Amino acid sequence: MKQSHLYTKTRKTLPSGEVAKNAQLLIKAGYIHKELAGVYAFLPLGIRVMNKIEDLIRSHMDKIGGQEILLSSLQDPELWKKNNRWDDDDVDIWFKDRDERIGFAWSHEEPMISMIEHHVSSYKDLPVYVYQFQNKFRNEPRAKSGLLRGREFIMKDLYSFTKNQDELDEFYRKITDAYKEIFNVAGIGDQTYYTFASGGAFTEFSHEFQTLSDAGEDTIYIDRDKKIAINEEVYSKEIVKELGLDEKKLEKVKSIETGNIFKFGTGYSEKLNLKYKDADGKDQFVYLGSYGIGLSRLMATVVEVLSDDGGIVWPESISPFQVHLIELTEGLGEDLYQKLLDNNIEVLYDDRQIGAGEKFNDADLIGIPWRLVVSEKTDGKVEIKNRSEKSAQLITKDEAIKKFI
Amino acid sequence: MKQSHLYTKTRKTLPSGEVAKNAQLLIKAGYIHKELAGVYAFLPLGIRVMNKIEDLIRSHMDKIGGQEILLSSLQDPELWKKNNRWDDDDVDIWFKDRDERIGFAWSHEEPMISMIEHHVSSYKDLPVYVYQFQNKFRNEPRAKSGLLRGREFIMKDLYSFTKNQDELDEFYRKITDAYKEIFNVAGIGDQTYYTFASGGAFTEFSHEFQTLSDAGEDTIYIDRDKKIAINEEVYSKEIVKELGLDEKKLEKVKSIETGNIFKFGTGYSEKLNLKYKDADGKDQFVYLGSYGIGLSRLMATVVEVLSDDGGIVWPESISPFQVHLIELTEGLGEDLYQKLLDNNIEVLYDDRQIGAGEKFNDADLIGIPWRLVVSEKTDGKVEIKNRSEKSAQLITKDEAIKKFI
Repeated sequence: MKQSHLYTKTRKTLPSGEVAKNAQLLIKAGYIHKELAGVYAFLPLGIRVMNKIEDLIRSHMDKIGGQEILLSSLQDPELWKKNNRWDDDDVDIWFKDRDERIGFAWSHEEPMISMIEHHVSSYKDLPVYVYQFQNKFRNEPRAKSGLLRGREFIMKDLYSFTKNQDELDEFYRKITDAYKEIFNVAGIGDQTYYTFASGGAFTEFSHEFQTLSDAGEDTIYIDRDKKIAINEEVYSKEIVKELGLDEKKLEKVKSIETGNIFKFGTGYSEKLNLKYKDADGKDQFVYLGSYGIGLSRLMATVVEVLSDDGGIVWPESISPFQVHLIELTEGLGEDLYQKLLDNNIEVLYDDRQIGAGEKFNDADLIGIPWRLVVSEKTDGKVEIKNRSEKSAQLITKDEAIKKFI
Repeated sequence: MKQSHLYTKTRKTLPSGEVAKNAQLLIKAGYIHKELAGVYAFLPLGIRVMNKIEDLIRSHMDKIGGQEILLSSLQDPELWKKNNRWDDDDVDIWFKDRDERIGFAWSHEEPMISMIEHHVSSYKDLPVYVYQFQNKFRNEPRAKSGLLRGREFIMKDLYSFTKNQDELDEFYRKITDAYKEIFNVAGIGDQTYYTFASGGAFTEFSHEFQTLSDAGEDTIYIDRDKKIAINEEVYSKEIVKELGLDEKKLEKVKSIETGNIFKFGTGYSEKLNLKYKDADGKDQFVYLGSYGIGLSRLMATVVEVLSDDGGIVWPESISPFQVHLIELTEGLGEDLYQKLLDNNIEVLYDDRQIGAGEKFNDADLIGIPWRLVVSEKTDGKVEIKNRSEKSAQLITKDEAIKKFI
């Protein structure tokens, strides 16, 4: 894409009250636009990152047998009443329409169970793993963390329907590995801890994926060697012992919850009456689990954790483009731009007629991992630099193309 | 995909009160699930069709210079009040949160204009064409037409920002051609009429793309030869004459509005104060247009118009799979299935252990355009049949693969 065609520009001014680093950088670089507190639009660069994150998560969910669907945002209060999750006293983040005959989805367990009833009746139909990328609406009172805590955000939520505890446990292990791989590929694997958290009424623990960051709202106790953490909310001497950890080795740190996985067992199925017939024709309750990753929160976490003074630093996996091609003399990049496109390399081509300093500053702010510069000085060759390194190399155009194929 | 893995099944029973043919067929075939009146979830087959439609529209919007973004569903009432479109007296389909401090998007002109102000200031920044695939919420009192009139639905809406009337007119012609091409590729081009409709306060006419169908809620007067129509809402002898049509040749028919395009001129810009500086440094109002296609309505229209007694008949462009491979003897389709996958051909492989009649009925209901059957009778070859034809041919497996590459 030619940067002269991209309608968004980098910005120096910020909306009033925007204190979160992730939102500040993403707004300045032209990825997002603030609409309301905790409500952001995705601009052309931003939607490219979101699509990359979506594709990354989708490929891992498909690999473990997930089937993609899309439930609605408008929800039936009757489904939630059955499970005691409609009243504001029970769930305090509902957006409801004026007459309270419609709820706006903050989660999807209840409608998911209602839908699955029409397609699952026998043990032969199980297990089933269903997921979606869906808007969630949460009337958060404290929406000051940019994309980390939005009142509207896109989430991947997967629900597992299994015949028994063993099948649930087996899938839980599989999706744990899938989540670890997703955070690795997204560049925050080293900073992300498998964390023991509250299991609510259903199970001893749920598990969170917590990424170390001062911008986080969570506090966890981490064991850096074992790469395990305990959320403050369940932290106790007994649990430290139960997990075989040494209290003295644990560090108390701030972190961002980038993922969470949860076993419900048969709790929800009993309340909502989701059953299947086993091989003997006997009714059994279905075992449930739910597994979430917020896409925009993941995007914000990467910005919080990997950025530097110059701006954003994307990992290659979720960068809006593979390459940022900058020409310092009008028209000099055109030839290489076409060759990159011909080889299906995603390239943002800065063909604007502005100074070199402004171009380099914008490139650092936007954060594409590889920068290519062509100018009269590069003499038919091209200067290549990684976003996180200081020094550049001069290589031929063919070498540049080969690098990104 | 193996059909034994697909968790949805074809259904014989329908939700009570579901009278629309499109919803009946799509529910029976396992494409959608009804959540509430006018609110549907998309199941694995359904989301594949939606994604095809999205890709089809996206490629045509990109071709005419569109840039994709994603605005939020939560909206700021202040923006809408400025344009007199917040009060229920002015717009009667708003979903609003209980305290009326949040609106749920039924359209996006106002937030789109507010966002664009941050990126457009000079004549050099224009024209800009921005589009999105976004959920719309409309509190429709009469939601009985299945996916044709949902209370929640995904729409492609594009907004054009141009310097003057000529630039607006030029883009209007381009997107008119793009829309015609989209409806052609989606298989309903022959039945879809470019229709003169009300222009509201802004312009003499807007234009709708109306697809002939008794399921439609609109009434239009069509000239079959000239492929032009007039919406009943603006029909008069004067307009017939103005358009150079012959009243006697016009037929009054029912139709579905599958697309609409609209020139606002400077009407909205004046109310919302969207200006740019021209080459002389003088302030000018931006010229606006908006252009919509409802994705689920398009899906429903194709079902209404092209289905037959056996079920749905998808055009190749938006079918969930290219090929429906059916084996009548266990394991006999496996080899061809793998070869089709190896050649990146999208195939639904019916490997279920049920009777041939049930498989054929399901295949007709699901409506994939090409059916391949392997059995002991086909003797190493494969029987190929088009969904809309009665007779089948016997061809070799290699021929079958070549046909779909």
